[in-house]
Parts: sequence; structure tokens; C-alpha cells
Amino acid sequence: MHEFNLIQKYFTWDNPPENVAMTVGDDAAIMDLPKNKQLVTSVDTLISGVHFPKETPAQAIGYKALAVSLSDLAAMGASPKWFTLALTLPEINQSWLEDFSQGLKKLAQEHQCFLVGGDTTKGPLSISIQVMGLVDSGKALLRSGAKSGDKLYVTGTLGDANAGLDYLLNNSQVLAPEARQYCQKRLNYPIPRLVESAAIKDLASSCIDLSDGLLQDLSHILSASSIGAKLDLSQLPLSLALRTLEDKNSLAYALAGGDDYELLFTTSKENESKLLSRIGDKVTCIGSIAKDIHGIIDKAGKQLESSGYNHFND
Amino acid sequence: MHEFNLIQKYFTWDNPPENVAMTVGDDAAIMDLPKNKQLVTSVDTLISGVHFPKETPAQAIGYKALAVSLSDLAAMGASPKWFTLALTLPEINQSWLEDFSQGLKKLAQEHQCFLVGGDTTKGPLSISIQVMGLVDSGKALLRSGAKSGDKLYVTGTLGDANAGLDYLLNNSQVLAPEARQYCQKRLNYPIPRLVESAAIKDLASSCIDLSDGLLQDLSHILSASSIGAKLDLSQLPLSLALRTLEDKNSLAYALAGGDDYELLFTTSKENESKLLSRIGDKVTCIGSIAKDIHGIIDKAGKQLESSGYNHFND
Repeated sequence: MHEFNLIQKYFTWDNPPENVAMTVGDDAAIMDLPKNKQLVTSVDTLISGVHFPKETPAQAIGYKALAVSLSDLAAMGASPKWFTLALTLPEINQSWLEDFSQGLKKLAQEHQCFLVGGDTTKGPLSISIQVMGLVDSGKALLRSGAKSGDKLYVTGTLGDANAGLDYLLNNSQVLAPEARQYCQKRLNYPIPRLVESAAIKDLASSCIDLSDGLLQDLSHILSASSIGAKLDLSQLPLSLALRTLEDKNSLAYALAGGDDYELLFTTSKENESKLLSRIGDKVTCIGSIAKDIHGIIDKAGKQLESSGYNHFND
Repeated sequence: MHEFNLIQKYFTWDNPPENVAMTVGDDAAIMDLPKNKQLVTSVDTLISGVHFPKETPAQAIGYKALAVSLSDLAAMGASPKWFTLALTLPEINQSWLEDFSQGLKKLAQEHQCFLVGGDTTKGPLSISIQVMGLVDSGKALLRSGAKSGDKLYVTGTLGDANAGLDYLLNNSQVLAPEARQYCQKRLNYPIPRLVESAAIKDLASSCIDLSDGLLQDLSHILSASSIGAKLDLSQLPLSLALRTLEDKNSLAYALAGGDDYELLFTTSKENESKLLSRIGDKVTCIGSIAKDIHGIIDKAGKQLESSGYNHFND
């Protein structure tokens, strides 16, 4: 099968939206650009055996490949519009491709993010997705805006995905059997926090998505903003699944575990009540920003070392 | 070394241009969008051992990974602006990375195409580049505009890269030793025809870049335009290197060989003299378009079968 037919057969779900003048079928895609917007773009690659266990269902791989890129747009306060797919496959496996396509389609349609182009090649399984979104000019959320006195917030719950991965890779027995399924779902189907992003984008002073673990990603905000933070560990939002664990286990997952894809953001005290009235049920205050703190400390003043996942330090 | 540092160290060559508000260092890149333009984007993946021999110098891999994507923009009549790099590496090899970066940088700077983001992952060597360019709204060159009576033109010379590859992979002895070096350079360092694209964009009725071989890529124009073509095989532009070969060899390379990255385009008879006065020394008329022809025929009326490179039919 020719690669053009492969994209046509498995990855053409809908007619192009009005803002897409040309999609797969020419040398490049053409998109219309609205006024007073900036283009926001991010690319992420998932490699089998590195970013997901080899046994991961194809549907989850398709879903997650787009989800992690959409999460980057959420972290910028941008609205997703288009994406491209660079898919490297060891072979043409029709049922795998159908499942992969279904996972991708579900999320793409949910967020009206349209596939405008792709490239399929033969090789070890790898998926690169580049998303493109739009933001009002000058209004993107950056890592660099955190200010002394700001409160630190996070969406959802922390550590579930890492607990699920720990069970899969290391057969860790700390999770009860019924909690494993929940944590694996959180690992395979992370929810890009685009709804929350839209609600906070005019209220947050800085934002990042959690891909490498809370401490490591928080340290990116702190270093970009030249400031420190105090974390209240007792306030870290934990799922029912993780609340059944001993503190040392749940804290390790929540502080250093990757793959959460929650939003970590700061907001001024003035914006806090507006934030809580909009999405108080979806966010948790876990600390505060202060200029007299170096790095990250807990409530007792103990330094918390940022650590996290690094592909080349395994 | 952390992946962020990897991009900072090897792939940060210049300060961002004015149209880039945020580049590597946040969750996504932010770019300004001008009025009355459309965004044109294309993604290409190169896999070691599939798209280039494993022995290919790192500098050539870096150069070519961007060149093939820029060639897609040239085929659309678009001006390159930005690109992202998804780089998968088996290990951190500093001298390889320096050479790869130099090859990429040379071409990026030449065409003022700025690296706005990237992702580095661990795995078998693979490079995905997505280029983004701009075109005046509604003015992109498509495959679908060829009309009966149009003349068929091509830039540069045909078949050199495939002759170089044939020597490398099969130790083919048809090329004289002094010609091999030239053909390998054409294989490793294809020139994206952006200068020619700018000169023809208001004169061409359709356009494609030659990546899979003349016959196969011409068939894409014909099928998109619902029309046929007559080729004058005696007019195919051949380099000095290929002119030393027997006709059957040079024709095979020129008609079915991939990796030329020349532009194949059609132009109306009315536009022909303007075309020739602008870039008559860089283009060759190789045939014509006619509605009463099915597929591709030669001057004697013999049908020419399109064939070419297909990753999944090896």
C-alpha cells in the first residue's frame, strides 16, 4: 500500500474545516490565519519501549500521542486548531492501524483539532505529532510570569500515571488490584486540560503542564521566573487510588512521577476568588511563590530536590 | 545531559527573528502571523537505513532532513519561516551532533528558516522536520491546476541522486569514478528550489517537487488535474555525469529515480516567454499537457508506466 493511501484510508475522518484550504493530497497543507492571533506550536515524539510499554494498546498510543501535544497548548492558554502526524511503523498491520486511528480520532474530534498532513515511514514504531494552535496576540501563558505572593495551583490529581507505570514495568504491588486499572487508564489516556486552560488563561501569571513530575516542572517555572516556592505537601491532590497508599509511596508518585499532564500554574491573590468561582472544583492550591525562597521548600522549610524523568540518564 | 540542554547547546544558532515571540524554552513556540497570508506546512521523516544509508555523514543528514521539507514549500510557492525538529538518537554522540547541527544550520540560515521548537528522544536514529511557511492568500501552487496545452517544465537535472544511491547501495559500476562523487553530493545535499519557486509562482499552473521519481510525481499532477502528458525523452535534462552513461541507464535514473528534489511544473503558453526571460537557464521544457492523452506517453505515443519508490513495497 502506498503511504498516501495509508493516510487517506486510516486518517481521513472528516471534511476539512473552513480554515483548511488544502490538506493531505498535495505537497503541503494550507491553512487560513485569523487576525490578531499568534500561532502556537509544539512537537512531541513517542517511542515504543521508551515513552510507553511495548504492550500498550494501539488505541491508547494514538490517543496519548495527540494528548501530550494538546497538553502543551493547554499550558500556553492556546486553542488547538491543526496537527500533523509523522508515523513510523515496522509493518502495515491493519487492525493496529484502525485502533491507533480510533484513539487519535476520538481526541482530535473532541477538541476540533484537524489533521492537516503527515508522513508514514517504515522503521521501529515511533509517533511524532506537531500541534498548531492559536492564542490572542500577546496573551500566551508563559513559564516566566510567577511573582512573589502568587498562589500555586494544580488541576486534577497527581501521581496516578506513574503509579500505573510502576505496576506495569516493575510489577509494583503497592497499588490494590482495583486501583491498578484506574492508574493505568490515567497513564494511557491523559486528559489534556484545555477546558481548564480556557478558564484560567486570563487569570494565571505562569503555567506549565506536568510531564516530568511536579518538582521538576515546578523548577522550570521557578527558574524562568527567577523565584522560589513553598509547597504544602499535605495539600497535594491525590486520587482515591493513591490515598490508599502509605504517604512515602503516594508522595513519591505525586512529586517525582511523570506523565500527569495536569496544569501547574500561579495566580495572584487578586485573581484567586475569580479563579475559584470559575473552576474551584477542578483546581487545588498546593503552595505559594516567594522571592526569599531558594528553589522549593516544604512547610517546615526543608529543601525538596527536583528530580524527574530524563531520557538520557536512564 | 537533559534534552532541553541538548537543544540549547546544539540547535540555538541565532537570536529569534522579530516574528518569533517565544522559542525553545517554554511549552510551545509562539509566532506572529502577518495579514493576507496563509500558513503552509509539511512534515517529513528520515529514517537511518531507509531514507539514507547508515554511513551517511551526519552533516548531510542534518542538511537533507531540512532540505526535503523546504522542497515541499518550494513546490507550493511558499516562503519558509519556521521549523521544528523531532530528533531520535540512540546515544549522545557530541561530534555527530555537532556535524548534524552544522548541516542543518547552513540551510536554515541560507533560507532564514528559524528553528522554533523540538523534541529529543532516545531510540533508533530518526529525524522528523516540520516546516512552516507563508504564501499570499489563495496563491499557493497546487498539483491540480495543469490544463490542456500547458507546457511541462523541470528545474535542474534529473536522476543524479538515484545514480549516486545505486553506486552506494549496489556498488553499481555504470558511473565513472569522477562522476560518483558528483552524484553522491546530489544525493546528500539536494538544493530546495526556493529561488526558482519564487520566480515561477505567479506563472505556473501546477507544481510538485520530485521526490519519488519523474514518472510517479508527474502522475500525481496528472491525476490531481484529470489530464494526460506527452514527454519528450530526448529533452530530459541530464548532468555531465549522467550524459556519459548509455541511454537505458540514464533514462532509468531520470524517469524512475527518487530524491531529485527538483520542481516539476506546468505553465500556459502565454506565460512561457515571461518564464524563460526570468529563469530560462534554470528550467527545461520536457513535454506538454493534453486532455486527449491517458497517463503519460512518449513522443512516439508509447505509454510510460509510472513507477517509483514506495517504502512499504520493498
